[in-house]
Amino acid sequence: MRAEIISVGTELLLGELTDTNAPFLASQLPLLGIDLYWISQVGDNQVRLVEVLKRAWQRSDLILITGGLGPTEDDLTREAIAELLEEKLKVVPALERELRELFARRRIEMPPTNIKQATLIPSAEVIDNVNGTAPGWWVEKDKRIIIAMPGPPREMQPMWYHQILPRLRQTVTGAIIVSKTFKTFGLTEASVGELVSPLLSSANPTLGVYAKADGIHLRLTAKAQSQRQAEEMIAHGEAKLRSILGEYIWGTDDDTLEAVIGHMLTEKGLSLAVMESYPGGLLAATITSAPGASTYFKGGLVASSDEALRACGIDAKVISDYGSSSAAVAQAMAEAARLHLGTDIGVGIAGVDESNEVEERLVTTIYIGIDDGKDKRAITAHYPPWDRAWVKRRAVTAALFWLRKILATA
Amino acid sequence: MRAEIISVGTELLLGELTDTNAPFLASQLPLLGIDLYWISQVGDNQVRLVEVLKRAWQRSDLILITGGLGPTEDDLTREAIAELLEEKLKVVPALERELRELFARRRIEMPPTNIKQATLIPSAEVIDNVNGTAPGWWVEKDKRIIIAMPGPPREMQPMWYHQILPRLRQTVTGAIIVSKTFKTFGLTEASVGELVSPLLSSANPTLGVYAKADGIHLRLTAKAQSQRQAEEMIAHGEAKLRSILGEYIWGTDDDTLEAVIGHMLTEKGLSLAVMESYPGGLLAATITSAPGASTYFKGGLVASSDEALRACGIDAKVISDYGSSSAAVAQAMAEAARLHLGTDIGVGIAGVDESNEVEERLVTTIYIGIDDGKDKRAITAHYPPWDRAWVKRRAVTAALFWLRKILATA
Repeated sequence: MRAEIISVGTELLLGELTDTNAPFLASQLPLLGIDLYWISQVGDNQVRLVEVLKRAWQRSDLILITGGLGPTEDDLTREAIAELLEEKLKVVPALERELRELFARRRIEMPPTNIKQATLIPSAEVIDNVNGTAPGWWVEKDKRIIIAMPGPPREMQPMWYHQILPRLRQTVTGAIIVSKTFKTFGLTEASVGELVSPLLSSANPTLGVYAKADGIHLRLTAKAQSQRQAEEMIAHGEAKLRSILGEYIWGTDDDTLEAVIGHMLTEKGLSLAVMESYPGGLLAATITSAPGASTYFKGGLVASSDEALRACGIDAKVISDYGSSSAAVAQAMAEAARLHLGTDIGVGIAGVDESNEVEERLVTTIYIGIDDGKDKRAITAHYPPWDRAWVKRRAVTAALFWLRKILATA
Repeated sequence: MRAEIISVGTELLLGELTDTNAPFLASQLPLLGIDLYWISQVGDNQVRLVEVLKRAWQRSDLILITGGLGPTEDDLTREAIAELLEEKLKVVPALERELRELFARRRIEMPPTNIKQATLIPSAEVIDNVNGTAPGWWVEKDKRIIIAMPGPPREMQPMWYHQILPRLRQTVTGAIIVSKTFKTFGLTEASVGELVSPLLSSANPTLGVYAKADGIHLRLTAKAQSQRQAEEMIAHGEAKLRSILGEYIWGTDDDTLEAVIGHMLTEKGLSLAVMESYPGGLLAATITSAPGASTYFKGGLVASSDEALRACGIDAKVISDYGSSSAAVAQAMAEAARLHLGTDIGVGIAGVDESNEVEERLVTTIYIGIDDGKDKRAITAHYPPWDRAWVKRRAVTAALFWLRKILATA
């Protein structure tokens, strides 16, 4: 099956928005054994959109479209598909009712133009959108499938996972592809590449190495005639990877460090509190983004100044003796968080929003303190002074990685 | 002048790499008055690449290509251009010498396949690559221009800025394009569309409406013969937009709400502290992501449980009387934050991580408290129970939007 992806929106052609939908969908298709040959971006212009659709209709079996399903005049995907297939758009009363109910529930009057979102052509079926007002379209005609999805990723992705992927899986019968991602932290991309180099030349399963915000990811992909055979190949590859990268692997596939830690804390019946200066709230925000975090995470303190550190219980003498950006203060923060909120474990992150010269290199230094009531640990991490948002995220990832390590051996 | 962008590389079709070159180039073209109608991604396959080039040659005056200039067999951009123009690739001795010298300087033996990077066709000129081994190509033929650039952004972008942009600027004599973005909060995309509908049909300046995480953005784009004329058109459009959307507009262009608030606080010499339950640290993390936030932001408290609320100074009776998710608690949080850290203003966000049926509708309700020592305000916001990350971000945006409003009238 030959697929083609079309992303619709003038903002893509103005460079205001980077198309992340096409790479997302592109990464999904190999798992279905579907070959992708074409991706294109086109503006909100019906003539050009129909032209792109006509070409896709000639050369592809599956056409995935994102964008252009909104309620405004420049949302033209429905109109373009209707023109391509020479079918008429009609308002479907049941869809109109649902749409009106949706607006009523939100206590907003429905703007008249929204009625577009309740229209269909005879060859199209509705794909429900649980996160927005624009339903998707599933069109089948002349042995081809067109799937139109809304542009916002938080509407498109759930629609893909829950409604489109299961149905497509039934439709296509290619070779089975199984893949598994391994997530590491603490090694550079080049080091990981060197360590796993014997596996990189394998043609099946293949191994890819990707640098991500939460560390280096490795993706094993096996192609086989049966699910079982593909899974066995993955299991073999996994055993090799784990023997090489061992303790650096903190999770697989959809795991996040915050969720991994959440599971460990829940299992061990331990509670957590944090105190942070440099990350400015990102440590607490990351921990609380895991589902069910409120059962083990009691709270956090964000101290952005020395006064705030003192107000949050850090000894003024420790600050003046060691400086607010120091291992001693990070340890004191971990302890203060633990005592203030009465938890089993406290984590502190200290650091200042400045770069310093260390051995002639410009670096930002972050201190991580972890206190479980028995041991006090401090970890020092140096970062190149790139953008602050990146350093904050790396510091938070490092703190969670070390907390996981300590929980694993506790 | 009509332009088209082609990004080459199989990794783009596998979803392993997001194409950031096309949006970069797309954002550069309006400044030259060049219209962009087409972007496409194609794999490392000569047949398909030539097909895409042939179509571009028919419909576009300027074809920008990135990728496929590397030294390996699957780098086929040079070969495809040669096939398109029916010209022969030849090794250029001067280029070969330079390439060999480059490898010699790096003390690496030149792999034989690299010789590809020293080839040219008669219509092509070399564009130097100061950051890599692959030179670019500038091709002019039959009143069309093809520019081929290397794929890695750190090679492509300097080549664009230093060699290509100055030369293109001399070549094109298009109209000047100026644009300005207006950022609003508090209205739906459809409502904004309805309110500004008289402006949406204008052909010059054009107006685009985009839903973003921090509200609805409007982008005015004017095309004129001179910079001054274009700026006047924008100023006229801006006056109209402001008369319609007035207080809903919180910023323009690169403004962020956290930076806007930072400027206002700094100007008025006011300090800020926050306390949050539902957003779990995201309010503090957002505020501290503005540059220089440590001068006015003293700190934050993240209270994820009733014990933590009490430990952070919220009266147990207020919690038991009104519930931890209530306007009363949000006001108490704002006051506690202000008093605990001794600041002029305190902001609190209360809410629980659950959806409730309110009059038969499933909603997540968030309460925002703002306390400036004189007035205590509480704002209630309802959200559809979509993904938690989204609701958190909307709640934080709402709190900052209201804080801005209060600061503006104070």
